Amino acid sequence: MSTPKKLPFHLTNTLSRKKEEFTPLNPPHVGLYVCGPTVYSDVHLGNVRSFTTFDVLYRWLSHIGYTVRYVRNITDVGHLVDDVDAGEDKIAKRARLEQLEPMEIVQKYTNGFHDVMRLFNVRNPSIEPTATAHLIEQIGMVQRIIDNGYAYVVNGSVYFDVPKFAAKHNYGELSGRRIDELLTNTRDTEGMDEKRSPLDFAIWKKAEAGHLMHWPSPWGEGFPGWHLECSVMSTKYLGMTFDIHGGGMDLKFPHHECEIAQSVAADGQAPVRYWMHGNMLTVNGRKMAKSEGNGFTPEELVTGNHKLLERGYSAMTVRFFMLQSHYASTLDFSNAALQAAEKGLEKMMAAVVTLAALKGGDGPASAEVAALEQACYDAMNDDLNTPIMIAHLFDGVRMINSANDGKLALSREDIARLNGLFNAMLFDVLGMRKEEEARGDDGALEGVMRLIIEMRSEAKATRNFALSDRIRDQLAAVGISIKDSKEGSTWDRK
Amino acid sequence: MSTPKKLPFHLTNTLSRKKEEFTPLNPPHVGLYVCGPTVYSDVHLGNVRSFTTFDVLYRWLSHIGYTVRYVRNITDVGHLVDDVDAGEDKIAKRARLEQLEPMEIVQKYTNGFHDVMRLFNVRNPSIEPTATAHLIEQIGMVQRIIDNGYAYVVNGSVYFDVPKFAAKHNYGELSGRRIDELLTNTRDTEGMDEKRSPLDFAIWKKAEAGHLMHWPSPWGEGFPGWHLECSVMSTKYLGMTFDIHGGGMDLKFPHHECEIAQSVAADGQAPVRYWMHGNMLTVNGRKMAKSEGNGFTPEELVTGNHKLLERGYSAMTVRFFMLQSHYASTLDFSNAALQAAEKGLEKMMAAVVTLAALKGGDGPASAEVAALEQACYDAMNDDLNTPIMIAHLFDGVRMINSANDGKLALSREDIARLNGLFNAMLFDVLGMRKEEEARGDDGALEGVMRLIIEMRSEAKATRNFALSDRIRDQLAAVGISIKDSKEGSTWDRK
Repeated sequence: MSTPKKLPFHLTNTLSRKKEEFTPLNPPHVGLYVCGPTVYSDVHLGNVRSFTTFDVLYRWLSHIGYTVRYVRNITDVGHLVDDVDAGEDKIAKRARLEQLEPMEIVQKYTNGFHDVMRLFNVRNPSIEPTATAHLIEQIGMVQRIIDNGYAYVVNGSVYFDVPKFAAKHNYGELSGRRIDELLTNTRDTEGMDEKRSPLDFAIWKKAEAGHLMHWPSPWGEGFPGWHLECSVMSTKYLGMTFDIHGGGMDLKFPHHECEIAQSVAADGQAPVRYWMHGNMLTVNGRKMAKSEGNGFTPEELVTGNHKLLERGYSAMTVRFFMLQSHYASTLDFSNAALQAAEKGLEKMMAAVVTLAALKGGDGPASAEVAALEQACYDAMNDDLNTPIMIAHLFDGVRMINSANDGKLALSREDIARLNGLFNAMLFDVLGMRKEEEARGDDGALEGVMRLIIEMRSEAKATRNFALSDRIRDQLAAVGISIKDSKEGSTWDRK
Repeated sequence: MSTPKKLPFHLTNTLSRKKEEFTPLNPPHVGLYVCGPTVYSDVHLGNVRSFTTFDVLYRWLSHIGYTVRYVRNITDVGHLVDDVDAGEDKIAKRARLEQLEPMEIVQKYTNGFHDVMRLFNVRNPSIEPTATAHLIEQIGMVQRIIDNGYAYVVNGSVYFDVPKFAAKHNYGELSGRRIDELLTNTRDTEGMDEKRSPLDFAIWKKAEAGHLMHWPSPWGEGFPGWHLECSVMSTKYLGMTFDIHGGGMDLKFPHHECEIAQSVAADGQAPVRYWMHGNMLTVNGRKMAKSEGNGFTPEELVTGNHKLLERGYSAMTVRFFMLQSHYASTLDFSNAALQAAEKGLEKMMAAVVTLAALKGGDGPASAEVAALEQACYDAMNDDLNTPIMIAHLFDGVRMINSANDGKLALSREDIARLNGLFNAMLFDVLGMRKEEEARGDDGALEGVMRLIIEMRSEAKATRNFALSDRIRDQLAAVGISIKDSKEGSTWDRK
C-alpha cells in the first residue's frame, strides 16, 4: 500500500501575514505555547474554540511525526481586593480562615476549566504551568529589563518604556500597530500619574492596601504585570526562541506584542518563530458578549439551558461544528448550523460503523481511495484546514455507503485504508469520540439495544404489535427513541 | 420529627495520644491540611486509603455544619538529575526542548493522580497548592529560622539545628522519639560532611551540577528541603495555628515532627492543634511494598490485572471496603475480604432501591429508627468510626427488608427518615456512588435491562425457553450476567 506524503506543514504566520512552510528549530522536537485561561470566572465558549484549535494543532503535529512539548498556562495571579474600608487593624485581627482566599477561587475555576476540557475531549498539554509558580523567574525578567534600560521604577511599580524600546526595535511588528497612531488613539488613564507615556505598561505593580495577592520583590510588595508570565513560562520550558505561539486574536495586541517586547528587552531575542491566532465567535451574526446577552457557557450549550438555544447539543457536536470552520475565520453559532453539524456527524459516525462491517473484494487498490487519503493530509498541511479535510471525509462517507449498497466495488486494501484514515483523521486528529464512549458506558447499552431491536423486529414480523408498541413505549420512558425505516430500526437518546 | 444530636465531634489527637473533643479555633470555620502526593510516580494504593480517610473527614465536618477550608498539597519539587557525565559544555549546547523536563513528569503524574481521585470519588480540596508555587515563602521561612538561630548555612545549603532546638523545645513531642535514642540509632550519612549533627535536616539544598530544578536564593542556587513546603503552605492558607493536620502514619516522623520544629523555630508557634494519622495497608497479612511484589496500583485493583488478584473490583467496592475498617487500624487486602465487601455493598444498594419503593403506614415514628439515626451520628463523632457506622446502616438494611417482607411496620415518617439517613451517610458522607452514575450512563441501561428482564420472565412463563436462553446468551456476549432466584431475576456486569 502506498503511503501518503505527510510533510511539510504550512501555517499562516501572523508575524509575516503569510502562509509559510513550517520548519522546527530542533526537529523532531516542536515547542508550542498557548495562552491558557484566567481562572477567576467560568471558561468562555470562545476559549473553548481557541483551545480546540490548538488541541487539533497539537494532535496534527504529533500525527505527522513531531515530538511536541505543548505548554498551556493557567493565569492565577488575580486582582481580588479585600474590603479595605474595614481598616488595617480590623483586617489584621481577622482570622486567616475568615478571609476571602484567592487560591480557593483559583482552585474552583481551574477544576471547572479542566472539566470543560475533558467534556470537549481537549487533550492535556505536556505542561500546565501557573503564574504564581514562576514569580522568582518573573522578578528576574523585570530586573533584566530594568538593567537593559527598558523599564523604570516609580513608587514600587515597574513600567516598560515603550517609546524607548520602539526607538530601537520594531514595536508593533506583530499587530501592525504604529506607535504614532497608538499615541493618538490611546485613552488608557490607568497609572498615568506614574507612567512616562500612555503606551507604557506595568511589568510589576505595587500592591495597594487590601490587595490580596502580593509577594516581596526588590521594588517592594507587589505582583507581576499580566504580560510577563507568558514571556517567562514559554521561554523557561521551550527555550529563549521557540517554534509556535498560539492564542485568540484578541490577545495579539497588546498581550503578544508586549511578550515580544519583553523578551527582546530582557534577553535580546525575539521569542517566537511562528505566531498563530484563532478567530472569534459570533451568535446569529452578532459578536458573542455578556453585554449582548448572547454569551452562553459551554455548559448551557450542552444542556440547552439558554434562551437562544432551542435545545442542547452534545460536546462532540459542538466540537465537530467548530472544526467545520477554519480557525482563522469567525464562527457563527445558530441552532440551524448546530443541527446541521449534528446531522453530519451522525452520518459520519454511521458510516464508520458501516465501514467496520464491509468485507471488500480481491481487486486492486483504488486510486480514488489513495487520492482521498492524500487530500486529507494536504488539507491539514495547508494551514490546518479542518473544514476541507472534513469535506474529504464526507467524500469517503459517500464511497462507504455506495460500497455498502453494492454500487461501488472496494478491495480489502481499500477498506483497510479507509478504516485507517477515519481512525486517524476523525478520532486521533479531529478528536471526535463516540458518544457512548463519552458517556463511559462501554458498549453494554449498545449490545443490549441490538438485542431489543431484534426482538421488536421479530414481534412485528409475527404481527405481535402489542409487544412491539410496548417495547417502543417503555424505551421512550427511559429516554430512548426508535426510528423505523426500510433498512431497519435505529435507536437514539433524546 | 426529632433531629439527631450532631455535635460534638471527637478525634484521636496524635499529639496527646488521646481521644479529644474537637473545638475549632474560629467556629464555624475549620482549617484542615493533608500532605498530598509526590507527583514523580503513580499514586500508591496506601495514598488512596489516606486520601479517602481525609475525604470522609472533610465530608463529615461539612455535614455536621462546619465551613471547612481543606488544603491538600502537591509535592512537585523533585530530585531529577540530568546526565552530568555529558559535561557542562555539552549540556549547555543542547536545545532546551531535548532535555528532560521535570515539569512534564509532574504534569503527567498530577493528571494521573486526579484521575484516580475522581475514580474513587474523592472530593477536590478547597486549595491544592504546589511546592514550586511557594518558593518565595519557603525562602522567607528559611531566613526566619536562620535569623532566630535555629539553622546554619554550609556551602550553599541550610540545615536545621535539631540539638539546639531540642535544648529549648520538645522535639519528639508528636512522634514520641527521644533525642538520645535517635542519636544512637541514626544511620543517616547524607550530608554528614556538612551537618553538625546527624539529626539535623536540610531546609535548603544547594543544587549540584545537573540538578534540574533550582532557584536563586540568598544562599545560592538551590531547592527547598522536603519538610519545608508543608509548613509554608499550611500556615499561608490556614493561619499560623490551624485546626487539623492529617497524613499517613509514615509521615509522623520525621516529616510532621520537622514541620512543628520549623514553625516553632521560625514563628514561635506550634502550627497544629489536632494531628491525625491514618494507618497502613497490608496484603494477605504482609506489608504492601514494591520489594514484596504485592504492591498493586489502584488501576490494577480495578482491572484485576495483578497476580494476587482473582479479578477486578470496582472503585466503589474498594472504597467501601476501606471504610469498613477504622482509619487508625491496619487494613488487609485479600480477595475474600474484597468479595465480602462487594457483596455487602450490593446488599446495601439493593436496600436503597427497595426503600425508595416503600410506602409506609400512618403509624407513629418508630423509636428504633430514631435510635439508628442517632447511632450513626454517634459512631462518626467517635473518632470517625466508619466501620461502626456502616454496621448500623446494615441494621437499617435489615429493617428495610423486613418492612418490604411485611414483617415490620414502618410509618411514612420512618421511611422518610431512613431515606434521609441513607442519602446522608452512604452517599454524602461515605462518598459511595451508584455504579451506573460512576459510569455516567444516566440510567438508560438500567431502564432497558428492566424491560429485557420482564420479557425474559414472560418468555419463561409461557415456556418459551429458546427465547429466554437466547436473551441470557446474548446478554452474556455483551458482558451482562443474569441471576435467577425465587424473588425474580437480577443483572450485573461481569
